[in-house]
Amino acid sequence: MNQFMKAVDLAKAYRLINHGPATLVSARHDGTENVMAASWVCGLEFEPARLTVVLDKGAFTRRLIEQSRSFVIQVPLAFQASLVYHLGSHSLFSEKDKLTRSGVSLFSLPGTDVPLVSGCAAWLYCELIPEEHNQQTYDLFIGEIKSAWADSRFFRDGHWQFEHLPADQRSLHYIAGGHFYTTGDAIEIADAPAETPGASEK
Amino acid sequence: MNQFMKAVDLAKAYRLINHGPATLVSARHDGTENVMAASWVCGLEFEPARLTVVLDKGAFTRRLIEQSRSFVIQVPLAFQASLVYHLGSHSLFSEKDKLTRSGVSLFSLPGTDVPLVSGCAAWLYCELIPEEHNQQTYDLFIGEIKSAWADSRFFRDGHWQFEHLPADQRSLHYIAGGHFYTTGDAIEIADAPAETPGASEK
Repeated sequence: MNQFMKAVDLAKAYRLINHGPATLVSARHDGTENVMAASWVCGLEFEPARLTVVLDKGAFTRRLIEQSRSFVIQVPLAFQASLVYHLGSHSLFSEKDKLTRSGVSLFSLPGTDVPLVSGCAAWLYCELIPEEHNQQTYDLFIGEIKSAWADSRFFRDGHWQFEHLPADQRSLHYIAGGHFYTTGDAIEIADAPAETPGASEK
Repeated sequence: MNQFMKAVDLAKAYRLINHGPATLVSARHDGTENVMAASWVCGLEFEPARLTVVLDKGAFTRRLIEQSRSFVIQVPLAFQASLVYHLGSHSLFSEKDKLTRSGVSLFSLPGTDVPLVSGCAAWLYCELIPEEHNQQTYDLFIGEIKSAWADSRFFRDGHWQFEHLPADQRSLHYIAGGHFYTTGDAIEIADAPAETPGASEK
């Protein structure tokens, strides 16, 4: 934890992932911890703040989440792209020193028993809402966001600040085969009210 | 339909939405059609190709999808940001001429009874996999992608081409309050195998 890490109002936590960034998922159970990459992370509800994450049956981290019923979704930055790719393409099942070899640095916060990844822009601590049918049939897990934090250099006053930052300090969007895009330029709709829901509709 | 619109292999259809773009959701039932904006669209499975979309109970388009059991997810481009915002902030419930006023242009493809939005970069035609518990409890809908197309100027050979295109011809990522980001620069991981799954793990 560094001095830039600030709590994010849960009502605005969805904004940390609304733009569809590549994420890292971390979890710990009974002394074993792991971190995996996941692109299939998505907002589900504003209040209570909820999200979905797809966790393949071959993912070691999935087992930790099934057992501990908690996990952290973090938003890494472009300078961490190689780390994200490494964590997403190596498995703790076959490589017991995966985390050491990846070079990932973890930290903890008081009152939580989950590992957080250093250097990321945002962290969403989630508790699993058990839905056995979704988990078994679709590999689909639902988490309720219980706490959220962001590095205030990248997200503050409820808004990402990427338009003021160089490309290596923006979030990532994964396609396939080691190919990412960074988050690009800002577009503001002139006549928009200040607070419009993130998953707009109608 | 224009001459640039090409079918996309279903095994690679997830790549059209893997980077978390803002999307438009369109549907038609019994002669009534609508288009809404949605950011909470996410890959779910590679094969069969599936995705999730969150559809609020206040969304007219949701009712069309519940009745017709089919819909289209499309990936709009940055030059369409005002259209996306308009379609996401007006409701057919209260504004019967919403589509006309939005200026959206729709077209159809032979063999499908769904409206598609002109000018987008990609289209995913989905059939609903009914999951009543998810739909009622979480507003969460699962679609199986039955056909996918992309404009070959923006996506070809299984890859987005945004790094070769100006900012107004890139996809959008929505935050809140009329604030979008465009898709930014490309990052390639040097030692990645050519075909790595999109929702990486481990």
